[in-house]
Amino acid sequence: MSELRKDPIVNRWVIISEERGKRPSDFAETPSQLTTSCPFCAGNEHLTPSEIMAFRHEGTMKDQPGWSLRVVPNKFPALMVEGQESHRHNGFYEFMDGLGAHEVIIESPQHQCTLEEMSAPDFTNVIRAYRDRIRDLRNDTRLKYALIFKNQGAPAGATVEHTHSQLIATPVVPKTVEEELRGSQDFHQTHNQCVFCGILNDDRKDNRRIVLDRDGFITLEPFAARFPFETWILPATHEVRFEDMNDEKINALASVFQETLMRLRKALNHPPYNFVLHTAPLNTYVPDHAYHWHIEIIPKLTRVAGFEWGSGFFINPTAPENAATYLRQVRL
Amino acid sequence: MSELRKDPIVNRWVIISEERGKRPSDFAETPSQLTTSCPFCAGNEHLTPSEIMAFRHEGTMKDQPGWSLRVVPNKFPALMVEGQESHRHNGFYEFMDGLGAHEVIIESPQHQCTLEEMSAPDFTNVIRAYRDRIRDLRNDTRLKYALIFKNQGAPAGATVEHTHSQLIATPVVPKTVEEELRGSQDFHQTHNQCVFCGILNDDRKDNRRIVLDRDGFITLEPFAARFPFETWILPATHEVRFEDMNDEKINALASVFQETLMRLRKALNHPPYNFVLHTAPLNTYVPDHAYHWHIEIIPKLTRVAGFEWGSGFFINPTAPENAATYLRQVRL
Repeated sequence: MSELRKDPIVNRWVIISEERGKRPSDFAETPSQLTTSCPFCAGNEHLTPSEIMAFRHEGTMKDQPGWSLRVVPNKFPALMVEGQESHRHNGFYEFMDGLGAHEVIIESPQHQCTLEEMSAPDFTNVIRAYRDRIRDLRNDTRLKYALIFKNQGAPAGATVEHTHSQLIATPVVPKTVEEELRGSQDFHQTHNQCVFCGILNDDRKDNRRIVLDRDGFITLEPFAARFPFETWILPATHEVRFEDMNDEKINALASVFQETLMRLRKALNHPPYNFVLHTAPLNTYVPDHAYHWHIEIIPKLTRVAGFEWGSGFFINPTAPENAATYLRQVRL
Repeated sequence: MSELRKDPIVNRWVIISEERGKRPSDFAETPSQLTTSCPFCAGNEHLTPSEIMAFRHEGTMKDQPGWSLRVVPNKFPALMVEGQESHRHNGFYEFMDGLGAHEVIIESPQHQCTLEEMSAPDFTNVIRAYRDRIRDLRNDTRLKYALIFKNQGAPAGATVEHTHSQLIATPVVPKTVEEELRGSQDFHQTHNQCVFCGILNDDRKDNRRIVLDRDGFITLEPFAARFPFETWILPATHEVRFEDMNDEKINALASVFQETLMRLRKALNHPPYNFVLHTAPLNTYVPDHAYHWHIEIIPKLTRVAGFEWGSGFFINPTAPENAATYLRQVRL
């Protein structure tokens, strides 16, 4: 069982997960390639834990081929539902069991198919699976957050090549989301509006950072982007929770999201990237004005070095206005 | 001139530095090797901007060979002293000139000499240079922080191989330090002591996370370490500002710091790493109990991926207690 620990200075939680433990000499090894027996390929279902959900062709059976998307528990989970919720103390140190969930969304039965290459219906199913998994996990009232993220390419942290995303659900609200919630509340007190709505409103007026604006969704480069070509996707009107979207909205988001990824891929020549989905916390009271769900996409173009770690200050070599121009000009 | 921009949601400042600007196609290029004409090697002083300070053999001249350590302005600075201090607004967006300083501390005239291989007096001079540069920069009252950091090895972000550290001074207090200051104040209100002193006190009792404890300095693995073998060095008694150390303390710190780096190098087989020096803000009132300077060393062993960026939550595969055991057992 892993352990959650809270830093007593800045109250940042970390997961100490020695199940994934390594001796010092292990860190130098490169991850082994799994091309012949990829656990995520169709036909290799026995190599993963039993599936949690799948989109399947009629008449096919659980943990057998015949699926177009499959969600399974992570074989080496950082957190597990078997944990206890209780916080414990040792002096002023605070810690708790590694309670939570860690799932893998296998986006396609084909090893080589990326999100950008997928058919529109298959891409839509990926987004639908994200929604459905969050809806299911929020029934466990011990869970306070569900973070969906993707590491595309080894430089972005992918250890399995086969296209997939992950979901980690935690019993505490992550620091980044806490900060966004607090910032949104402060902004609302001063400006009497949602900060994300304010950004959309302002940015749509001068248009310099907007990449796409259609079907109820906006793709933009944020004013204070940390990374070159950092890209956000937000619903154009105020929505607190991603998982409250109906199928019609899921379809529209999928179309805008896939086009955004295709533009990034073309502009940056197949970059490795990460994306994360930020929705409101689960099982937690959130005032309606205090959050606005969004997706953050971060192409992995620069190395984050000592200055960034030490300061929380980022140096971005590409003005977001210029990145937006490049992305708009891409011909798909 | 670069620009400082504040994120309106979480109030995080970023530096948009297009002087370092790149077109999308430039990101794929690998940095060129500079082995034949390294600008930091003795004899190539003309390849850098004119030196700010140096430790020199008697009778040698500025910007000529004969130095053992040399500090020069960064040729491609993220921030410059020519900027204006004024904050400006565009709607609710806040920004300011890229005011500050960006210096390079060339730690040795020899291309191949690392901090671990240096003689003790040379290593001590590096620490002394850090102190002297901060003391000089705090005379510019527009500057609110001086962050010293090192990127060792290309995976840790080094773009020039020749051993060096950097200093970036900023007109605002970095987010990470703000958080430590706020956390320290909160802790003091509850526990009536400095949080760093509390940590040292507790950890020295059970000793499980202590690596070195001698000559007034402690090397430890923090309880909620974000990264495997994340290592901190702190003065054993309460000290707010690194730059207030006298020469005797500098000598003692240098000895503990170099031994710490040597232990990490041996345990982890020459890992790339970053370190950052956290001292109190400059030209800013800081209550005496509200800060305790320290050094954070982060070996670059794992890739930070989508989950960490998206959540501020870190997954650490090595319990700090085990890392401390490994580091104590290293035979130098």
